[in-house]
Amino acid sequence: MPTYTAPTRDARFIVNEVLDLASYSNLLGFESATPDIIDTVINECGKFAAEVLQPINQQGDAEGCTRNADGSVTTPSGFKAAFDQYRESGWGTISSPEEFGGQAMPHVLGFAVEEFISTANHSFGMYPGLTNGAVNAIYATGSEELKTKYLPNMIANKWLGTMNLTEPQCGTDLGLIRTKAEPQADGSYAITGTKIFISAGEHDLTENIIHLVLAKTPGAPDSSKGISLFLVPKVLVNDDGSLGERNAVQCGSIEHKMGIHGNATCVMNYDGAKGWMVGEENKGLAAMFIMMNAARLGVGIQGLAQSEVAYQNAVAYAKDRRQGRALTGPADPEAKADPIFVHPDVRRMLMDAKAFTEGMRAFYLWAALLVDLTHKAPTEEERAEADLLLGLITPVLKGYGTDKGFDTAVNMQQVFGGHGYIKEWGMEQFVRDARIAQIYEGTNGVQAMDLCGRKLPAKGGAAVQKFFAVCDEEIAAAKGDESLAPLAEKLERALCEQKAATMWFMQNALANPNNLGAGAHHYMHIMGIVTLGLMWLRMAKVASAKLADGADDKAFYEAKLATARYFMDRYVPDAGALRRKIETGAESMMALDEAAFETAA
Amino acid sequence: MPTYTAPTRDARFIVNEVLDLASYSNLLGFESATPDIIDTVINECGKFAAEVLQPINQQGDAEGCTRNADGSVTTPSGFKAAFDQYRESGWGTISSPEEFGGQAMPHVLGFAVEEFISTANHSFGMYPGLTNGAVNAIYATGSEELKTKYLPNMIANKWLGTMNLTEPQCGTDLGLIRTKAEPQADGSYAITGTKIFISAGEHDLTENIIHLVLAKTPGAPDSSKGISLFLVPKVLVNDDGSLGERNAVQCGSIEHKMGIHGNATCVMNYDGAKGWMVGEENKGLAAMFIMMNAARLGVGIQGLAQSEVAYQNAVAYAKDRRQGRALTGPADPEAKADPIFVHPDVRRMLMDAKAFTEGMRAFYLWAALLVDLTHKAPTEEERAEADLLLGLITPVLKGYGTDKGFDTAVNMQQVFGGHGYIKEWGMEQFVRDARIAQIYEGTNGVQAMDLCGRKLPAKGGAAVQKFFAVCDEEIAAAKGDESLAPLAEKLERALCEQKAATMWFMQNALANPNNLGAGAHHYMHIMGIVTLGLMWLRMAKVASAKLADGADDKAFYEAKLATARYFMDRYVPDAGALRRKIETGAESMMALDEAAFETAA
Repeated sequence: MPTYTAPTRDARFIVNEVLDLASYSNLLGFESATPDIIDTVINECGKFAAEVLQPINQQGDAEGCTRNADGSVTTPSGFKAAFDQYRESGWGTISSPEEFGGQAMPHVLGFAVEEFISTANHSFGMYPGLTNGAVNAIYATGSEELKTKYLPNMIANKWLGTMNLTEPQCGTDLGLIRTKAEPQADGSYAITGTKIFISAGEHDLTENIIHLVLAKTPGAPDSSKGISLFLVPKVLVNDDGSLGERNAVQCGSIEHKMGIHGNATCVMNYDGAKGWMVGEENKGLAAMFIMMNAARLGVGIQGLAQSEVAYQNAVAYAKDRRQGRALTGPADPEAKADPIFVHPDVRRMLMDAKAFTEGMRAFYLWAALLVDLTHKAPTEEERAEADLLLGLITPVLKGYGTDKGFDTAVNMQQVFGGHGYIKEWGMEQFVRDARIAQIYEGTNGVQAMDLCGRKLPAKGGAAVQKFFAVCDEEIAAAKGDESLAPLAEKLERALCEQKAATMWFMQNALANPNNLGAGAHHYMHIMGIVTLGLMWLRMAKVASAKLADGADDKAFYEAKLATARYFMDRYVPDAGALRRKIETGAESMMALDEAAFETAA
Repeated sequence: MPTYTAPTRDARFIVNEVLDLASYSNLLGFESATPDIIDTVINECGKFAAEVLQPINQQGDAEGCTRNADGSVTTPSGFKAAFDQYRESGWGTISSPEEFGGQAMPHVLGFAVEEFISTANHSFGMYPGLTNGAVNAIYATGSEELKTKYLPNMIANKWLGTMNLTEPQCGTDLGLIRTKAEPQADGSYAITGTKIFISAGEHDLTENIIHLVLAKTPGAPDSSKGISLFLVPKVLVNDDGSLGERNAVQCGSIEHKMGIHGNATCVMNYDGAKGWMVGEENKGLAAMFIMMNAARLGVGIQGLAQSEVAYQNAVAYAKDRRQGRALTGPADPEAKADPIFVHPDVRRMLMDAKAFTEGMRAFYLWAALLVDLTHKAPTEEERAEADLLLGLITPVLKGYGTDKGFDTAVNMQQVFGGHGYIKEWGMEQFVRDARIAQIYEGTNGVQAMDLCGRKLPAKGGAAVQKFFAVCDEEIAAAKGDESLAPLAEKLERALCEQKAATMWFMQNALANPNNLGAGAHHYMHIMGIVTLGLMWLRMAKVASAKLADGADDKAFYEAKLATARYFMDRYVPDAGALRRKIETGAESMMALDEAAFETAA
């Protein structure tokens, strides 16, 4: 049975030493996040995740969720009790707004908590996970009445939230939505339609579920400009806040999935269900994107999560399992064979994983800090700058993070040889669970197009120019430091590839937009490499300074420097290949017509 | 529900036009493989696979195999009936030796048949699949008595064979085997021990199962030099060929696996079971490698198989599913959305798959021809040369083929968006089934070390020098042809990367063998790219000539040329990145000790 230890030392390293959260104590909400509080939250949540959530993860996969005859859904054994503990500990309220009962602490802390939860139990984490996005959407666009009525209980996790976007005929292209919202005399709407793939659509964890549903009002434009967002509670809420009648929304069935069996992915049937509009009519897409952006950051963390737990178990197996001898001669001559840890190809997979997971942790925590800065930085300029960078890196965190996260989980399964394919060891569950993160909340192809088609050209390329400036500055500074210069020079090569690819898009996308589409996926991966490289440069800088200062935890900092070297050796070269692929353009990719793809018998 | 059409046109193209099998009609067994016979075998087997095996694939996954209270195993619904049809049609006997009832036709044909079977139903194909390897081992090393007694029924698929290597403590490192073989007065041996991960170890398809089992005789050297191979029938065979008593071998349990549920992967308990030595005492490893090499080629085909069927279904979905608009403007303005086929990122995944699957088909059929030539080429020199090349490309076919095969299946699942994650669509089964091929018959890390540690240095590098000579010659010839020169030039770049990496190994592996181990995986992938590139150059050459000749099937040949261009554009650049990674050596990879991999709380 697999095990999990929350990597709290590493999280504290990034939060306290790399991001230096204490230096932001002048910001609203940050003053309460003292180093003591930070350490306590990280350590306690790490314990909760490892001791309560991880032990019910494998059973949750085997058992799955059950839809009962009355349409109710039973979650796997132990989920309800664990959720009660989660709610009581307040893990879901850390960075929620104080006026509705949240703790208003930095998102940096909220995201760190999310990592541990997702890693210990991906399916469990999805139940409260989507609630944050729903809260954000209501908070940003909902009426005071809706906020007062729903947010306190949602933030307290007494009620959970969902996102209802997808329909059978409509995934990415939300203009195709058919669900209807008919205005009623009392100001509410009657919602009718079928939604599919609704995560946590029905369950037994809370007494109420607040669905946020995209639908069309009568006569709305027949495109994504005609979508509105509605709040549809599972159980209607009386004016005094007590629960009233059951609303006309039902779970029709639970999808049979490759993984995340512990989460109920539901077909939801709305049959004239009572709902209230959130924000303005026909502006549902904008409100939805508030949810979606939060969800995408969360999914990026999931990319790290399953690779982290898979990595920890692969390390344990590689130390324990004995097969063959080291190429350099027996490492343990007394035994009949050496641990497979000695084999370079095993080490390659473990180092790939270590370089990825620690780099990704720095990446998402940087993104979390940017989320905070978009709201709380002292000047408008700083807030705008944070927003610009955050928009640019969000699709990279989601797309690159989950692509590499899945690859990493697969490689960690590979370390186990045949045992990795056997369910009992748990590795194949990590792979199946990790797979969804590349797909949901916008497939990674959609992320790549968001990055290249929207974020790159927006505001005359201001976001990517800002990103380049950040990289240039940190590389230049590192080049002046003997211990960092070799790392900085290698990162600079990857950055040059990204700049060249950006330039190529500028010169070739206008003539043929397919040139952009044909390279978007590769560009997202180049930028993932550059961003992780930047994270490794930052971590190496801190480690190097700590070692120079004679820090106690010497081995920890030396490992950071060695892993940074490995990242530059083994990740950076791909940037050049990706750039060369981009520069071949769309010609050979789009040359063939449909018939050429038919299988000829 | 997924569908499958056997790509018989493409198989015939490669066999008849690229390999030009007719030109080998002077070879023993090839004279009967006339173009007519070839077409009939390919077309008929393609039909059988698509019409009989594919329809029971998804149900086989859902149902799995059942171990009954008496230790017998029931295969999924329809498997027995399909197997009877398979046996009666003689699909398993195509390239088996004539003296024991086989059809003695070229392996090129036998392998093509194997592709269709594996693609239609991976789990089903494994039942007869391992029998070929067992037959080869007995044929090459067994006594006349064993051959006469067992081969006819095995070749006729009246009985099936298995390979019993792995034990709980012993996977790759066969020196750790504990199963014992005690010599008996009658010349047989009593076999006692536990084997795990035994594919098709027990089932209801045939009245008998012939297990080939690695075990140690008393006093044998305590290493891989002390292993012998034994034939252990499930049911003892009387001297008159009739079935006698049940032998003391039992299926202890069926493993719970990530995929290939339709195949019974068994724990096999030998409790003094009667067995007969195959070949010489303590030479079991060599006999086992006869089986293993055949199995590795078969697994390479499986790498293609699941990506092929996944590709076909992704193509169908991409044409049918409508979301969004083409970047260049609506492709179907009458409809509310375009098929997702128009999106470059979808096309990228489909073209990646097309370039891989068609290239792999040419690759394994070339390997099959080499298998034939090792036995049947007219001169000793030609046979030795074929053997040299075959040994070199076998780990590449298995390792690169299954790594990319898995990636391709994953990408084809990605084309489906959320629907790809749902079981009913069948795509996630292809991914789960494809995953095993990277693991079994020697993990791909073992393949990489076989390639770099054994095959590269053997005979002073003769094999790789021969491979380079073949590439050099074909590239030089193609450069003289205007339509092929751009392809040849790009392939040459990849070949240069492989040559540089080979040279780097020569200069750096002696000083530190970990430099070899640290680059082996990447080297295997470079060579995979070069080999597929060579296949695409060959296919392009034929296509170009056919077009110049005014061939009827113009679209088919034009698609080959476009796909060859795509391969050179989008696969070849990786060779350079891989070479650069190799050249960073083992330093940063092996720098950290075990403690640095512990998760610090």
